[in-house]
Amino acid sequence: MKPVTLKQIAETLGISITTASKALKDYPDVSKKTKRLVKELAETLNYKPNAFAVTLRTKESKTIGLIVPEVVHHFFSSVIKGIIAQAEKKGYLVIILQSNESYELEKKQIDLLLSKRVDGVLISLANGTGDFKHLNDLMVQDVPLVMFDKIAKIVNCSKVIINDRKAAYTATQHLIDNGCKRIAHFRGPLLPQNSIDRFLGYKQALVDNNVPYDPSLVYILDDMSFDEGKYFAEKLLKDHKDVDGIFINTDLVAIGAITKFNEMGIKIPDDISIVGFSNWFMSSVINPRLTTIDQPGYKMGKTAFKLLYKEIKKKKENLPPNFKTVELQTELIIRESTKQASLSKT
Amino acid sequence: MKPVTLKQIAETLGISITTASKALKDYPDVSKKTKRLVKELAETLNYKPNAFAVTLRTKESKTIGLIVPEVVHHFFSSVIKGIIAQAEKKGYLVIILQSNESYELEKKQIDLLLSKRVDGVLISLANGTGDFKHLNDLMVQDVPLVMFDKIAKIVNCSKVIINDRKAAYTATQHLIDNGCKRIAHFRGPLLPQNSIDRFLGYKQALVDNNVPYDPSLVYILDDMSFDEGKYFAEKLLKDHKDVDGIFINTDLVAIGAITKFNEMGIKIPDDISIVGFSNWFMSSVINPRLTTIDQPGYKMGKTAFKLLYKEIKKKKENLPPNFKTVELQTELIIRESTKQASLSKT
Repeated sequence: MKPVTLKQIAETLGISITTASKALKDYPDVSKKTKRLVKELAETLNYKPNAFAVTLRTKESKTIGLIVPEVVHHFFSSVIKGIIAQAEKKGYLVIILQSNESYELEKKQIDLLLSKRVDGVLISLANGTGDFKHLNDLMVQDVPLVMFDKIAKIVNCSKVIINDRKAAYTATQHLIDNGCKRIAHFRGPLLPQNSIDRFLGYKQALVDNNVPYDPSLVYILDDMSFDEGKYFAEKLLKDHKDVDGIFINTDLVAIGAITKFNEMGIKIPDDISIVGFSNWFMSSVINPRLTTIDQPGYKMGKTAFKLLYKEIKKKKENLPPNFKTVELQTELIIRESTKQASLSKT
Repeated sequence: MKPVTLKQIAETLGISITTASKALKDYPDVSKKTKRLVKELAETLNYKPNAFAVTLRTKESKTIGLIVPEVVHHFFSSVIKGIIAQAEKKGYLVIILQSNESYELEKKQIDLLLSKRVDGVLISLANGTGDFKHLNDLMVQDVPLVMFDKIAKIVNCSKVIINDRKAAYTATQHLIDNGCKRIAHFRGPLLPQNSIDRFLGYKQALVDNNVPYDPSLVYILDDMSFDEGKYFAEKLLKDHKDVDGIFINTDLVAIGAITKFNEMGIKIPDDISIVGFSNWFMSSVINPRLTTIDQPGYKMGKTAFKLLYKEIKKKKENLPPNFKTVELQTELIIRESTKQASLSKT
C-alpha cells in the first residue's frame, strides 16, 4: 500500500494543503475543529511526513535567504547592513536576491531558496506582488518567514514595520504648520502597502486641518529615482503654479527635486517647502539640507533577523511558531527645506 | 580494487591537485610536459573522474554566485545592477554575498557557493584577502570564476579591470595642470591592488612633473566612508596648512571632505582643488560639483557576466577555458571642484 500523502488528507477534508500542514503543526490561525479533524484523519490513515524531506529540513544550513526589491536602494542598503550584522553574530550567512520589483522573479527566488535549503527567509515584497501563494509554499515546507517594510497584511507570519500612515501624517502636518496650503505628494506605485499608507496619512492630515484635498496634486512615481524627482519637480511647477509644499515618499526623489529647483532658481523653503522620507545620510549633505522622516533601516534589519532566528529556534524545538508584528518608531527631523514649525506659528 | 583518485595521481607526480586537475582539462597555464605526464598516468591507472561529482556538476543550476566586499557601496551597486541585468537576459539568478572586506568570510562564502552548486562565481576580492587557495578550490571543482575590480594578478582566470594607475595619473596630472603644488592623496587600505595602483599613479604623476613626493601627504583610510572623508579633511588641514589639492580614492570620501570644507569655510577650488574617483551620481549634486574619474561600474558588471557566461558554455561543451582580461576605459570628468585645466594654463 502506498503511503498516504498530505495532499490526500487535504482533499479528503476539502481544505488546502497549506491549512492541513498548518493544522498538523498547531499554527494559531487554524481553527481547533480543523486541527482535530486533520490530526484524527492523519492518525487513522497512518500518515507519516515525508521522511526524506524531514531529514533534509532538520539539517541546518546556517544560511538564510533575503529577498529585497532593490539591493542598491539606500534604505534597503541600511536594512541589509543590519541583517548581515545580526546574522553574523549568530553564525549565519545571508544569501541576497534582488526581485527588481517583479512578482515573477520573486516567485522564482522563493523556489531557488527552497531548493538551496535555507533555514529561513526574510522578504520585503516587490511592488508587483499582489498574490502570496509562493509565500505559503515556504510555510508548507516549514521554512520560517519574516516580512519587513513592504509586507502583506494577510500573510500570517512575523513582521517588522513602521507606522507609515502616522509618519506621513506627521510630515504633512509639519508642512501645514509651516503655513503651506497647496501641498503636493510624490507617492510610490499603487500596490505596495507602505505607498498606500503614506498617501492615506498625507490625505488624513489635509482633511483634519481643513486643507482641501486635490487629487491632481498627487503624482504617482514608477521607480522612485533621482531622475524622477527632477522630472516631477519640473512637471509639478508647470501643472500648479501655486504649490507651496511637497511631501515626497523617499529622500532620493526629494534630492532630485531639490536639485531641479536649485537649477530653476526656485527658493527652498521660501517658495516651496519639502519634506522627504527615510533620512538617508545625503539628506544632510544636500543644499538646503532636507527635512525628513527618519526611518530606522539598520534597526529594522536587525529586528527582522532576530525574529527569524527565534522562529528557527522554535522550529528546531518542535514548538509552534509565535508570530509577532514589531512596529519601529519614526521621527521627524527638521532641517532647512522647511521653515521651522515654531517660527511659522508665531 | 579501489578506483584511483586525482589526489593519488598528483602525489605520484609530486604536483598539486590543482595542477593535475588543470592538466587533465588542458588549461593553458600548465606546461605541455606536465599535461602529458598527468594524462599518461591517468590512462595507465584507468582514472575516472568522480562520476557522482561530474553528474552534479554538469547539472546546471542556472544560478551564479557573486561575492562583493560591500553591497551598499555606490560603485558595487552599479556593478551589481549590470550583472543582474545581463544575467536575467540569459535566465540566470544571482546569489549575492557580502564579504565585508573579510578574508575569512570570503572563504566561507566560496564553500557555501560550492555547496549550493552554482554554475559560476563572480568575485571582487575583500581588502583582507592575500591568499588565494579558496579560489583554486573553485577551479579544482571546475566552477568557472571571473574576477572584477579588486582582482589578484596571480590567479589565473578571466578578469574585468580598469587601468587604475593610468586613471590616478590623469587625476593627479589634472591637479598639477591646475597649478597645485602640494597635492595630498586619500588612499584605500594597503592590500587591494586597485588601492596600490592608484597610489602609484598619483606618485608617478608627481615625479614626472617634478613635484616633490611627500609621504606625509598620503593618508591611508580604513573603510572609505563619508565620515572618514570629513575626518581626514580636517586632519589634513591641521597637518599641512599649505595643501592646495587632493586626489581622493572614491567619491563618497570626497563628498565627505567637501562637506567638511564647506562647514569650515574653505573655498573649493580657490583654496583647495579636489578630484574624486568613480563618478557616483551624487558627485554632480554636491556643491561644488565634483571633478572625478568616471569608472564604468554598470559596464563592468555586464562584461563580467558575459565573460562568465562564455566560460560556463565552454565547460558544457568540454572545451578548455580561454581566459581573457578586459580593460575598460575611464574618463576624467571636469566639474567645479577644480579650476578648468585650460584656464590655469593661460
